[in-house]
Amino acid sequence: MLVLITYDVSTETPEGRKRLRKVAKECVNYGKRVQNSVFECIMDSAKCFEVKEKLVKIIDKDEDSIRFYYLGNNYKTKVEHFGVNNNNVDVEGVLLF
Amino acid sequence: MLVLITYDVSTETPEGRKRLRKVAKECVNYGKRVQNSVFECIMDSAKCFEVKEKLVKIIDKDEDSIRFYYLGNNYKTKVEHFGVNNNNVDVEGVLLF
Repeated sequence: MLVLITYDVSTETPEGRKRLRKVAKECVNYGKRVQNSVFECIMDSAKCFEVKEKLVKIIDKDEDSIRFYYLGNNYKTKVEHFGVNNNNVDVEGVLLF
Repeated sequence: MLVLITYDVSTETPEGRKRLRKVAKECVNYGKRVQNSVFECIMDSAKCFEVKEKLVKIIDKDEDSIRFYYLGNNYKTKVEHFGVNNNNVDVEGVLLF
């Protein structure tokens, strides 16, 4: 299934910037960065549980947030992209404009 | 249906920062800001077409990107949130942890 991970990590302090780097670094292990704070991950429930557990441990729950969006298996028509494609986005079937 | 709008707007120049403000300002008219560059909009296809047209006109296609995710009508179990809830997120049915 396609799982979208979006995050806001407060970068006002060095600790925050460290958390941001950690979150991004962890997400890279599970999916493709499609925007600065947005990753698309094709994974099963077990992997999803795993990354969720890891990310929740990294963030400061009073400062940061993470959201997970479950787009299922038939995601090809559920995503549209406009503009620059900085991050070598090539998620199969995504409509590029 | 729930439409997720995520964007990356280059803020390296004053023009970029202006575009960022414009994109955010436009998105506010259509939905709820759930993270810095992530909006959740409950809208029909006509409204979606409208906001898409507006946003695509604002961005610089060589610098910025916008993505649309279509989560359909049964979105309540498709979103999970962890951590801080800065933006008064109260999208009905979203699981908060």
